[in-house]
Amino acid sequence: MTVTEQPAAETTSTTGPVIDTDVHEMIGDINFLDFVDEPWKGRLHPDNWMGISIPYSWPTTGGLARPDAIPDNGERAGSDYNLMREQHLDAFDIRFAILTGLLYPSEFKVQPDFAAGIAKAYNDWVAHEWLAKDPRFLGSVHIAAQEPEVAAAEIDRIGSHPQMVQVMLPVISHDTFGRKYYHPIYEAAVRNDLAVAFHQGATIETAVGLPPFYIEWHTGISQAWQSQLISLVIGGVFEKFPDLRVAMVESSWTWLPHLMWRFDHNFRSLRREVPWVKRLPSEYIRDQVKFTTQPMEIVENPDHLYQMFEMVGNDEFLMFSSDYPHWDFDSPTRSLPPSFPADLRRKILFDNAVKFYKLQDRL
Amino acid sequence: MTVTEQPAAETTSTTGPVIDTDVHEMIGDINFLDFVDEPWKGRLHPDNWMGISIPYSWPTTGGLARPDAIPDNGERAGSDYNLMREQHLDAFDIRFAILTGLLYPSEFKVQPDFAAGIAKAYNDWVAHEWLAKDPRFLGSVHIAAQEPEVAAAEIDRIGSHPQMVQVMLPVISHDTFGRKYYHPIYEAAVRNDLAVAFHQGATIETAVGLPPFYIEWHTGISQAWQSQLISLVIGGVFEKFPDLRVAMVESSWTWLPHLMWRFDHNFRSLRREVPWVKRLPSEYIRDQVKFTTQPMEIVENPDHLYQMFEMVGNDEFLMFSSDYPHWDFDSPTRSLPPSFPADLRRKILFDNAVKFYKLQDRL
Repeated sequence: MTVTEQPAAETTSTTGPVIDTDVHEMIGDINFLDFVDEPWKGRLHPDNWMGISIPYSWPTTGGLARPDAIPDNGERAGSDYNLMREQHLDAFDIRFAILTGLLYPSEFKVQPDFAAGIAKAYNDWVAHEWLAKDPRFLGSVHIAAQEPEVAAAEIDRIGSHPQMVQVMLPVISHDTFGRKYYHPIYEAAVRNDLAVAFHQGATIETAVGLPPFYIEWHTGISQAWQSQLISLVIGGVFEKFPDLRVAMVESSWTWLPHLMWRFDHNFRSLRREVPWVKRLPSEYIRDQVKFTTQPMEIVENPDHLYQMFEMVGNDEFLMFSSDYPHWDFDSPTRSLPPSFPADLRRKILFDNAVKFYKLQDRL
Repeated sequence: MTVTEQPAAETTSTTGPVIDTDVHEMIGDINFLDFVDEPWKGRLHPDNWMGISIPYSWPTTGGLARPDAIPDNGERAGSDYNLMREQHLDAFDIRFAILTGLLYPSEFKVQPDFAAGIAKAYNDWVAHEWLAKDPRFLGSVHIAAQEPEVAAAEIDRIGSHPQMVQVMLPVISHDTFGRKYYHPIYEAAVRNDLAVAFHQGATIETAVGLPPFYIEWHTGISQAWQSQLISLVIGGVFEKFPDLRVAMVESSWTWLPHLMWRFDHNFRSLRREVPWVKRLPSEYIRDQVKFTTQPMEIVENPDHLYQMFEMVGNDEFLMFSSDYPHWDFDSPTRSLPPSFPADLRRKILFDNAVKFYKLQDRL
């Protein structure tokens, strides 16, 4: 089927309602410190402890940021609610924006109790400084996954906040999240009716580690989401938690047909290694995993992109994301091919996220 | 376009002529030692030094081997020329079989001069024990890439053997082959009119290193070919050596549309980091890189596989390979969907390899 056989959206400048599944609120000034308990508060020094950062220098024009998203006060892009509202939420018809942060305690390789302390502080800061300011914001529960029982307790503590919709895990390369060790986190997510989202962390690597250039790294890192997805299936996470909803955020997704085919093919040959996995890997993925759009690749022939949907096997697996305020931001009006059917556009921009995040009662 | 709109091959049990681009000759008994120079010969002990091996236990029925390919003498599958001839070369209409070995000195992480000594011995052993026995065999020049100048000299030494068609590099995870350090190897390959083939090494890892289970690793390792391909483009190898021909062997290939889209998309944003790369990454890949079929994924709807060819943009990038005698062997009669057009089948099974390996004069 070609997209030209379908009724196209009338224009691309209006989108209808949008849910943005990846908006990064950032810590700007040090009022974050007000939310940090001792002894961690006394050990944080803004000039010294900077969080985790990507090891590459930036070949972009504004570093990690979209240059026009840097506030006048010079603080980090994404740290100013008013600018975000004006430039993003109100500029488009964004009904909900899911805040995904970027300081992921689960990827701290040292001091797990410090990581847990930061996670708790971050959740309280987000609730107070962001969720309380705008009912369109929905939040992610940050945890220190390296201490799964502590993480589960944090999910239970803050997960009932009415605007919290998911637990955040970073895509990392030094461990695999399908391991049994991490299962209490998924159990807690299901218990609190929260999704689990995987978003790129700063420590993410490729199959060759950290290659010499940023462009190599940035082109290759979708591999790590693929490996974490493989791990969730093989670790039996979907089999054990059939109500678990997983979102792969900023993973890109056109690798999905390849992965599902290869994974099923291998499963048919090698399944005796993992007898607790009962169904074809692609079935778990289709039933329990969603993906977000950004970074949406430019494909010369939009029919090819449309065929990818048919290969995945349904049109409900993809949800719009902008990655505001980062350099590779995708606009709601420009990221989907104009020739895509209006019905598919609406599903990607709105309906699929309503269903996945169970937002029907909030509309 | 669907495959059913095309004239289909009449039967699947006859293939016409075949070139198999991935056949593993293996060292069986210790006559290999006759080819090893001192001091290395004296330091090889068959009971101790076993080469490099994959760290996982095998959930397959015959380990690495297709069980029926293990010779009666109990030596390694692939070590017996007569069995290989009977079971594979003569059983199908195989006109040429490209020997790819499996002992790759380029992935030895220690003792580079030992690696170079083994490479030289291996090349002499292959020429004497395999190439001399059957004119259908074509060979790969093994090198120790960690010593690029020594490797280039070895390519010059043995590369003029009339049956040598390519230089072999293993797909590894601890270094990237696009780095300038390795360019003398590509220069030597071009100078000797040899292709360069990348085949899975035993030290290959994924974006999460070595995940707990073999099925996770085996599903994820195509990532490392992708990273090495990214590295060749960004390292300027194709720009610097426009006559270089590269084969990605056992990489699988249905990830290619995704990679080309994502890579081009990133190149448009980030190319100022790598000004020596002049063209879109996908253009270098289309012009200079071929892929082999095995492991060919089973795709429920063959139209989807056919669409992948259209996404890649031509039908000359893929060459048949069996991976004989390994457990995941693909048969020439069964690996391509029966509904594929006869013309496309012939290109994959024969014509594309004739062109890539410049075999016209040998037919």
